[in-house]
Amino acid sequence: MSLAERIRPVDAVARAAAAERLDRMTKPRGSLGRIEDVAVTLAGIAGSCPPPVPEPAAVAVFAADHGVHAHGVSPWPQEVTAQMVANFLAGGAVVNSFARAIGATVHVVDVGVATPLDPAPGLTSRRVAAGTADLTTGPALSAAQVLAAVDAGVATADELAGAGAGCLVTGDMGIANTTAAAALICAFTGADAAAATGRGTGIDDATLAAKIAVVGRALDRHRPDPADPLAVLAAFGGLEHAALAGFVLGGAARRLPVVLDGVNAGAAALVAAAVAPEAVGYWLAGHRSAEPGHRIALRHLGLAPLLDLDLRLGEGTGALLAVPLVQAAAHALRDVATFDEAGVADKG
Amino acid sequence: MSLAERIRPVDAVARAAAAERLDRMTKPRGSLGRIEDVAVTLAGIAGSCPPPVPEPAAVAVFAADHGVHAHGVSPWPQEVTAQMVANFLAGGAVVNSFARAIGATVHVVDVGVATPLDPAPGLTSRRVAAGTADLTTGPALSAAQVLAAVDAGVATADELAGAGAGCLVTGDMGIANTTAAAALICAFTGADAAAATGRGTGIDDATLAAKIAVVGRALDRHRPDPADPLAVLAAFGGLEHAALAGFVLGGAARRLPVVLDGVNAGAAALVAAAVAPEAVGYWLAGHRSAEPGHRIALRHLGLAPLLDLDLRLGEGTGALLAVPLVQAAAHALRDVATFDEAGVADKG
Repeated sequence: MSLAERIRPVDAVARAAAAERLDRMTKPRGSLGRIEDVAVTLAGIAGSCPPPVPEPAAVAVFAADHGVHAHGVSPWPQEVTAQMVANFLAGGAVVNSFARAIGATVHVVDVGVATPLDPAPGLTSRRVAAGTADLTTGPALSAAQVLAAVDAGVATADELAGAGAGCLVTGDMGIANTTAAAALICAFTGADAAAATGRGTGIDDATLAAKIAVVGRALDRHRPDPADPLAVLAAFGGLEHAALAGFVLGGAARRLPVVLDGVNAGAAALVAAAVAPEAVGYWLAGHRSAEPGHRIALRHLGLAPLLDLDLRLGEGTGALLAVPLVQAAAHALRDVATFDEAGVADKG
Repeated sequence: MSLAERIRPVDAVARAAAAERLDRMTKPRGSLGRIEDVAVTLAGIAGSCPPPVPEPAAVAVFAADHGVHAHGVSPWPQEVTAQMVANFLAGGAVVNSFARAIGATVHVVDVGVATPLDPAPGLTSRRVAAGTADLTTGPALSAAQVLAAVDAGVATADELAGAGAGCLVTGDMGIANTTAAAALICAFTGADAAAATGRGTGIDDATLAAKIAVVGRALDRHRPDPADPLAVLAAFGGLEHAALAGFVLGGAARRLPVVLDGVNAGAAALVAAAVAPEAVGYWLAGHRSAEPGHRIALRHLGLAPLLDLDLRLGEGTGALLAVPLVQAAAHALRDVATFDEAGVADKG
């Protein structure tokens, strides 16, 4: 059975049961706002009401490099990708800090860092290539590389689910990856390069103009067809976007909630939604990043972000901050007394 | 020494140290957005960088009734205040569920429920009166009642701080209390009754029109002077707003971060800020509620909410959901490696 065939629609009966229970709980109807939507979503994903609390959460940080880096789209040297992987493995990055704070685990997956990495605890090597090729002069990836990277993401989701994760969280690391993300977002949403391309980690006006021009040239060269999502991935990469697409599809196939981080997760989710539209029901948008393309991607996906805190770090940090909200929604559905149970008068 | 004299400005040196450390941490400068603001705020409150992680959190739910209920401003019977207190004590309400989910404790304080409550574990009786008087025909509270209720809030903050709480969270329960909150917000911000008065737990158009008229009549009758905040409290009540004002001032005096819940906390914070403007530096707005007066109150206080999830429940629920974000900010400042420590190249 193909991956797409493994993804079933979320459970409408469990969703209805959750909505009905929320209306009998000792609170004014609808007064938990967006948290009620999350509770209903979790019931639909789990196929039960109440759903289990989605814990522990596990964040997979897919790391890779990008040929487009040579065009000066980022002020950071490419070596920072590998250096940050070492920082993740030492527990010194923000993703590690936030994960510890909420009881989540961090799993780093090398799908294509330019320089080979030494084996280390917490690092899984699923290397497909030493980074992507230059997307302005040819495809970033071959078709075989795309499939291998998607499989790496699916395998990671399966591994974490098999190890007992109750909630999957997307993470990414790759200097220059917001350039590839912008191209992917344009390909799937029809947005202009200028609208979807942002400052990433924080670039100046001249670098932004160059980055927009690079995205525009890539779109002109490849003329991507959003109906062929794997071809779009081949055109633009990156390896972490392909792996993230596999990861969010794998989570849906395992019927687990997947909390999406920022613009790179959003770009990958557009790929994955084109492969299997039913998968979208398993995803929660953890936050809206400061990157303009992320807003465009979320609107196209029909996902409303839980947080909007001007984050633009990546690594999975924004998604991790949303995990306690997601877990609280499940707790409420499990714990809160109904009007009848508590002997509280309903306004009727 | 008066309460206001006990409140010292937040520590500018610790704030500057936090901002400087954030810029050396292994992440692009500013990339944690609003979380960086929270980290700086926590350092200033604690007077140290890094600040301690503000845990455990303790939510105080101040419960009281309102004479204005007789005007039909809420579809809920007044008895629901006492019934919900029983629900809190049994652990069956949303505030209990959220508190358990994030490791916080719940403390219920009766400052003026209409019907006397039986003693119970988790309930502190600091009763000032059996609810307020009708604010449309006279003052809701006497001057002595205001002082007693404020003192009840200060004593609660002192008690929780003394028991080791690292973060105070505001909670409230009182059928009809959004009517008093709207009047308080108008008094301190100059807003019109129609702009500041909302649907509370969810009322229909006719009830909303009646509620706006009641708030307008109360404002016309009392012509409150925002320079005399205790007189404004006497005019409109409620006992929980007075206690919340004391609680948020008491937290500031103890140099603890105080996470504010929704519109009732916002109204009380306006009172407290008029008493001691330096106290505002100790408060974090947990969320922005669906109630229109809350937006007005937060703007007047200069506080930006962390969450915006259309919550309108009260009890402290929205503030509790923000507590993990506040704690994560402190974790990041304590845990994350600098560029030098991690051997990661800075873009310079």
